[in-house]
Amino acid sequence: MHPRNISILGSTGSIGRNTLKVAKHLGDIAVSAIGAGQNAELLAEQVSEFRPKLVACGDADCAQRLIGELSRRGILKEDLPEIVFGEEGLVQVATMPECGTVVSATVGAIGFVPTLRAIEAGKRIALANKETLVMAGELMTSAARQSGAEILPVDSEHNALHQCLRGEKLAEVKRLVLTASGGPFRTKSREEIAAATIEEALDHPTWDMGDKITIDSATLMNKGLEVIEAHWLFDLPGERIDVVVHPQSVIHSMVELVDGSVIAQMGVTDMKHAIQYAITFPERLPNPLPSLELSSVSQLTFEAPDLEKFPNLAIAYRALEKGGTAPAVLNASNEIAVRAFLDGEIQLNEIALINGRLVDDHVPQTADSLESVLQADRAGRAAAEEMVSRSESATASINRV
Amino acid sequence: MHPRNISILGSTGSIGRNTLKVAKHLGDIAVSAIGAGQNAELLAEQVSEFRPKLVACGDADCAQRLIGELSRRGILKEDLPEIVFGEEGLVQVATMPECGTVVSATVGAIGFVPTLRAIEAGKRIALANKETLVMAGELMTSAARQSGAEILPVDSEHNALHQCLRGEKLAEVKRLVLTASGGPFRTKSREEIAAATIEEALDHPTWDMGDKITIDSATLMNKGLEVIEAHWLFDLPGERIDVVVHPQSVIHSMVELVDGSVIAQMGVTDMKHAIQYAITFPERLPNPLPSLELSSVSQLTFEAPDLEKFPNLAIAYRALEKGGTAPAVLNASNEIAVRAFLDGEIQLNEIALINGRLVDDHVPQTADSLESVLQADRAGRAAAEEMVSRSESATASINRV
Repeated sequence: MHPRNISILGSTGSIGRNTLKVAKHLGDIAVSAIGAGQNAELLAEQVSEFRPKLVACGDADCAQRLIGELSRRGILKEDLPEIVFGEEGLVQVATMPECGTVVSATVGAIGFVPTLRAIEAGKRIALANKETLVMAGELMTSAARQSGAEILPVDSEHNALHQCLRGEKLAEVKRLVLTASGGPFRTKSREEIAAATIEEALDHPTWDMGDKITIDSATLMNKGLEVIEAHWLFDLPGERIDVVVHPQSVIHSMVELVDGSVIAQMGVTDMKHAIQYAITFPERLPNPLPSLELSSVSQLTFEAPDLEKFPNLAIAYRALEKGGTAPAVLNASNEIAVRAFLDGEIQLNEIALINGRLVDDHVPQTADSLESVLQADRAGRAAAEEMVSRSESATASINRV
Repeated sequence: MHPRNISILGSTGSIGRNTLKVAKHLGDIAVSAIGAGQNAELLAEQVSEFRPKLVACGDADCAQRLIGELSRRGILKEDLPEIVFGEEGLVQVATMPECGTVVSATVGAIGFVPTLRAIEAGKRIALANKETLVMAGELMTSAARQSGAEILPVDSEHNALHQCLRGEKLAEVKRLVLTASGGPFRTKSREEIAAATIEEALDHPTWDMGDKITIDSATLMNKGLEVIEAHWLFDLPGERIDVVVHPQSVIHSMVELVDGSVIAQMGVTDMKHAIQYAITFPERLPNPLPSLELSSVSQLTFEAPDLEKFPNLAIAYRALEKGGTAPAVLNASNEIAVRAFLDGEIQLNEIALINGRLVDDHVPQTADSLESVLQADRAGRAAAEEMVSRSESATASINRV
């Protein structure tokens, strides 16, 4: 079990692909296990290049397609990796004995149980799947305390906070300041946001990411989830975690200390930085990425987030304050609502309407067991599906069909 | 010898007065010894309030005036502190046995020997007198290695670098980036700079400091001296110490690591921050200073320094590269030239003409003994005085008289 022997949950996604680029650059990284959903073709390509011993597919059908792709590439039967599927398959990837680091980069709640198992197995977790901590921060962090697993955030903001805190004591931190690009609708009106198309919402100004997280950036829910994530990673209450809109995304986040000093981490907007940091920590190693050229940045600006236009951010703070299962319900609701938006079933502003209603109506339970968290997740999904189906936009869309 | 039992070299100057404010706020600081130049009235006030056991004045006359001031304030003869004077007096302040921290805040070369003695005595040095390291960085840092004295920079830029480096290994640092406000002449032409009045040069846009350092900021010599200071403090060569002009002075300096990550320290422009940091390190303690409000900062800008308009910066890099006694000569030359400018004897642009000529003509000697450094200092002063007296402006000014 070596930190540079890695497994990747979500290898075909944006973070997964970038992790493989980092592994290739670093050279001394063994990619022993990878898991993904349905993209058998890309999985086959990754297997050909990195030769993992274990591969997990979303389901049996994808596993079958993967075998086909690999044989088409001339990989002999005896050279095939072990191929598994489903959540159990992802758990195998997450707990592969020789791997010291698990890059948790699946999108949404699917990575939850595998990541928890990796934590229990004492792996270092390079955590890109923020939903995991949002759903079950208490469970995850107490498991990490027990097993000694380190959780190293790959989210650029939390990775920045981790870097800012390297030489600091948490007791001397006044507040964390997460920066937000503000997304594509920062300067738009409420009405324009409500009427936004899927294409407009997917057009993020500074980061190139997956669809779910890009929509979350457009609604500022991403920043809300990050506030909850920061709470669990750095053990500070919501009122000491602030958000500032910084459209250039040059400062990735900041820490204010009790003496008023502010430490900020800056860099170019390429997630390979944070991925490499999480894998090689505490070492810092060179990489071929371009340097931040401050003279060419020319200006950095800051503004307070507009909670009227972006109610999701305030909803996340409310969920964090409610505590217990409330963040899990919010996360579930948001996944359903975002998918409904991407499927054309609801308008962009309805995501926050659904999330807000569910969080405010929720009576939180303690979230210290897998069952309570999964139960909250299911209940949140069901209630959100119900709200999506009752949405006027959904009705309109069905009528159009 | 306790770090919170302090002595102050230069208690009546800008840093000295702010140090006393910090001591007052912190509460548990004993100010056991103070030393200053000629301001007997302010010294008397400081003695009344902080009751140091030892006070050094610039000369016997000032000591006499101080005794008069103190008796006028009703301080009984038996309650008088020990009053000393001259360089030997400052050395007594710097080496007072019970003091653990010496705030070295005299302006110019006068603090050199006392600070060296404090280092040899193993004190923590809160170093605001950058000339000390510029003149004799090799001597100072090797003495500190031998005695175990810590040198904690109070200059806001170097203090920022110290903070950025708290959790980092020097071997993983790619470069240091000192920020420069650009001074009052950033947007002015060469001709306007040459014709600048003393008042214009003393009008610094962001920092309220003493006269010498304010002129050095206007000519960018301050940043040049800081490059040399950073070299000695952080043991990196000049080519890995960059300067970026950042007129808002919100980012006090930055460190770029080998992985491309940039750590920056930000804060309000109040030197009490850095003073407190240097006294309480490694602890960070609250203070009553206003917080940095990023949303109200609104924008930060960056540009490359203009070495044509501000040749002093390039001259400092040349002096650092020449090494040995060259920086001591530059420092001496600059002190004389700045004083001549403040006395109306030369134009602002002539400071760099004098400094450049002296550095370029200098054949450096090793600077590893007090004698060699003092010799270079004397030679630099004499040569600069000579150039001042030959300056056409000086002649013109004499003619006007």
